[in-house]
Amino acid sequence: MFRTHTCGELNTSTIGQTTTLAGWLAKSRDLGGLTFIDLRDRYGLTQLTFNMDTDAALCQQARGLSREDVLQVTGTVRERENKNLKIPTGEIEIIVTELKVLNHSITPPFTIEEETDGGEDLRMKYRYLDLRRNIVREKLELRHRLATETRNYLNDQKFIEVETPVLIKSTPEGARDFVVPSRMNQGQFYALPQSPQTFKQLLMVAGFDRYYQLVKCFRDEDLRADRQPEFTQIDCEMAFVEREDILNLFEGMVKHLFKTVKGIDIPELPRITYADAMRLYGSDKPDTRFGMEFVELNEFVAGSEFGVFNTALSEGGKIIGICAKDCASYTRKQLDELTDWVRDPKRGMSGLIYARVEADGSVKSSVDKFFDQEKLQAWKAVCNAQPGDLILILAGLTDKTRNALGGLRLEMGQRLDLRDKTKFSALWVIDFPLVEWNEEDNRWYAMHHPFTSPHPEDIHLLDSNPAAIRANAYDMVINGWEIGGGSIRIHDRDLQSRNFQLLGFTEAEAQEKFGFLLDAFQYGAPPHGGIAFGFDRLCSLFGGADSIRDFIAFPKNNSGRDVMIDAPGPIDEKQRKELGL
Amino acid sequence: MFRTHTCGELNTSTIGQTTTLAGWLAKSRDLGGLTFIDLRDRYGLTQLTFNMDTDAALCQQARGLSREDVLQVTGTVRERENKNLKIPTGEIEIIVTELKVLNHSITPPFTIEEETDGGEDLRMKYRYLDLRRNIVREKLELRHRLATETRNYLNDQKFIEVETPVLIKSTPEGARDFVVPSRMNQGQFYALPQSPQTFKQLLMVAGFDRYYQLVKCFRDEDLRADRQPEFTQIDCEMAFVEREDILNLFEGMVKHLFKTVKGIDIPELPRITYADAMRLYGSDKPDTRFGMEFVELNEFVAGSEFGVFNTALSEGGKIIGICAKDCASYTRKQLDELTDWVRDPKRGMSGLIYARVEADGSVKSSVDKFFDQEKLQAWKAVCNAQPGDLILILAGLTDKTRNALGGLRLEMGQRLDLRDKTKFSALWVIDFPLVEWNEEDNRWYAMHHPFTSPHPEDIHLLDSNPAAIRANAYDMVINGWEIGGGSIRIHDRDLQSRNFQLLGFTEAEAQEKFGFLLDAFQYGAPPHGGIAFGFDRLCSLFGGADSIRDFIAFPKNNSGRDVMIDAPGPIDEKQRKELGL
Repeated sequence: MFRTHTCGELNTSTIGQTTTLAGWLAKSRDLGGLTFIDLRDRYGLTQLTFNMDTDAALCQQARGLSREDVLQVTGTVRERENKNLKIPTGEIEIIVTELKVLNHSITPPFTIEEETDGGEDLRMKYRYLDLRRNIVREKLELRHRLATETRNYLNDQKFIEVETPVLIKSTPEGARDFVVPSRMNQGQFYALPQSPQTFKQLLMVAGFDRYYQLVKCFRDEDLRADRQPEFTQIDCEMAFVEREDILNLFEGMVKHLFKTVKGIDIPELPRITYADAMRLYGSDKPDTRFGMEFVELNEFVAGSEFGVFNTALSEGGKIIGICAKDCASYTRKQLDELTDWVRDPKRGMSGLIYARVEADGSVKSSVDKFFDQEKLQAWKAVCNAQPGDLILILAGLTDKTRNALGGLRLEMGQRLDLRDKTKFSALWVIDFPLVEWNEEDNRWYAMHHPFTSPHPEDIHLLDSNPAAIRANAYDMVINGWEIGGGSIRIHDRDLQSRNFQLLGFTEAEAQEKFGFLLDAFQYGAPPHGGIAFGFDRLCSLFGGADSIRDFIAFPKNNSGRDVMIDAPGPIDEKQRKELGL
Repeated sequence: MFRTHTCGELNTSTIGQTTTLAGWLAKSRDLGGLTFIDLRDRYGLTQLTFNMDTDAALCQQARGLSREDVLQVTGTVRERENKNLKIPTGEIEIIVTELKVLNHSITPPFTIEEETDGGEDLRMKYRYLDLRRNIVREKLELRHRLATETRNYLNDQKFIEVETPVLIKSTPEGARDFVVPSRMNQGQFYALPQSPQTFKQLLMVAGFDRYYQLVKCFRDEDLRADRQPEFTQIDCEMAFVEREDILNLFEGMVKHLFKTVKGIDIPELPRITYADAMRLYGSDKPDTRFGMEFVELNEFVAGSEFGVFNTALSEGGKIIGICAKDCASYTRKQLDELTDWVRDPKRGMSGLIYARVEADGSVKSSVDKFFDQEKLQAWKAVCNAQPGDLILILAGLTDKTRNALGGLRLEMGQRLDLRDKTKFSALWVIDFPLVEWNEEDNRWYAMHHPFTSPHPEDIHLLDSNPAAIRANAYDMVINGWEIGGGSIRIHDRDLQSRNFQLLGFTEAEAQEKFGFLLDAFQYGAPPHGGIAFGFDRLCSLFGGADSIRDFIAFPKNNSGRDVMIDAPGPIDEKQRKELGL
């Protein structure tokens, strides 16, 4: 060992001891007679002291060192005169008697401190230096703790972690697969798994009964901010269970993680149907850290001459309001901003209607021309708006209006500081639709995936009214993020075939792509279901961050490149030839 | 939940209880008035009893069931008349009152029992049925326990598990990479990692100090029996350590695994140099469950007229013997078999010399013509052969002879039942050569990999005598298998450059392939080293098996195919186009 202690463990209880430390020069201060160096390792910072009077040569050597040099020092632990009570080692210093430079550092491209001058691109290129920063390293330590506690919980529940293969078969349905050309089977390709879905179902057929895996998955999608081509799932499946069992067990897991990793007891997770989530929040992943629920105003706006509302009503659309607390004082400029926000082409609303509740209880709206005070008072009542509040209203076709108002609700939550990163609000969203119609491809698509079971009582609608079928599916949503999702699966071969048929697979296609699963279902497949959690997102949620990137040791940028190692890259002619490319 | 208990937990302490079980019909016996069914799940077997007298309809239903049907039954636990004390549930049975068939099974392609009639190919195609067999499932449960205890040990030692990327850069050196065409960067490719080597070294530069990962690695090699294109490593790296620290820490890990998983205390691991391992066992991964060490006889055979020995001597080769206990009685036929064995082209020896020690102490050899009793007695003495023993001798060029005799030693160990799968003999092999010369390519190759540090005292030989340089490398060998291997790494940029140079990389090539690592070494790289264990092999060792395949849930065959899902397979034209292939 190059050290007897780490830079994080010496304190007043070790005064007088001889110690050897190793680490990086974080900072040095030359005060003439004395030179101080902060030595940093993974565990902390320890102050080294060199004295010109007692050992001039050593002190001179220390003065010649640079930031990020790797040092090994031996010395004695002494109580400090100027104590720093902010860090555990802040009451002591090391009077150094030996100093060895284990490796030099040239000047790093950015400062390795909590606050750095390095931009995103530079920090990604030198990710190994970025990772030296405490706040980045701590994110990966948090990830490790979450992985450990996830395994602890699931192991205690008799789950077995089973590794499923990475080189599998391409079954394009949903996102694009990454593929791997096979040298031994030229012209053929493996695919990297988008999830181990079919394998975990086969494990249920195999009688494994409680499976999990922290597993890398891959999707060749155009990357938006904060999407990675490779990502990690907590992938789980259980046999002989019903929805209730899965919800309870994984609610327990998330509670365990909050308790052990953050010391927080979260309350029982409320359950809300997909229909209600859309109705109340305009989103299937509502941020429930704050209320501001939708209020449908259709019945309170009829009979006016206001065209926007009337069009919405005549098209079977909706007029929906939210109540923003204490926002009646919003200026013209602020309201114009919000109007521009909803008019943005990606939201596509024609305008924003507002109604302020004045201090005296009267309501003043942007549509006073069309609605008298009595009408407006009715809006106020149904929105439960108080003096000082601002009611914001959108009108139009239902889906579009809900979507836009859902966004506006989050925007208002942000502006009102209601989305506190240290607060956590978790819930289950249940009863998703089984399928959704795609106009472009003129076919039904599975809302989750083709293996999701319909609600037993909705199976009879398979032929007559697919849109009305509720899936036996569920998402766990925390703070507006879909953290996990799953379903009870189909375990009956015939039902699975009918579902494939509904999704436009011919018999032959279904057999070619998923024949192994259909076959397996013939040999005694038990009832089963499962769930998968986005582990990167879970980590960033626990870390109070918006981006997942810092919770991945070596992430890729938005072009799917690893700029540190410069990948992807060319391959040589010999490799190409061997692969038949 | 479909059950109140599992099929493994009911016993005499639960007699009289009402229970609901779910599982597979393993076996049924119709004894006229009574029908018995063994119900199986992951946890065990429980006997169900149906009585024609008390419930004829239910009993008739039970008689109509088939093997592997999935059942849910409710009934009462009763003490059995005919007890089976071999299984934990063998003293009770369930008097069934309700029976529900959750799913039917068609006749499986092989019987799902300990002893199966299914051949390898059939069992792989229906792997999900093979996995239902207890002895297969238990192998994966063992794997889970080993993974869990590995993590427990390393977590306790303050290691952090960090996930390194799967989509990296192709750096062909050693085995072939699997590559992944990039859609977003057409004409470029990712590679799948053969190991996370450079990433774990970058984590050391990043100050992570104790890293591990149970990680999938990939090699596109021609598959021999028992090689898989994807395999799992326990990958570890530490900073601020010397070889001694790593050997101690990972010796501790393996002891912990033997203790917690198998209840075995293994003794301290002996250390043997590569040179001694080759000299004594003709192998760098000696099976030390038995002795039968090599004895070099050069000085005892000089001056004869026996051509084989004289040629070996004149070519600078070796005459080496092993002593096979109690084998003096080997018949002509047995000795001929052994002779044929060493003459096999892949061993390439011209013949086998033997010498039997008779009951009276005299020696009778196949070369009596050339050596008198005095000479033979000297062989006997140096080989420590006793009456009844057989000395087997090979002669020729050193490497070839050692290799062949190493094989013969294992063969004799096998014949003498000295390779007991329930015994474990672990050791460290150290001081490997840094490089080996490849005649074909006319260049040096790294024996481990290009990042391995030379012994500090051998660095001066880098230019003058590379063959003589010892690497600061080590392998853990158990029962003749290389279970783990690693080294202290180079952490100095200049030394790394010189090593690349020795291995025939131009400056430009080194920079192109490993520039990110060379760059990283400039910013304060700490001394570091590590090790990686072959996890699949470790599992099979612990499981007392020769093959790794059964310890992998969904393995590939020798053509790299998954015959269950039928991968690899074709991709469609649209995918090809998008990838620019």
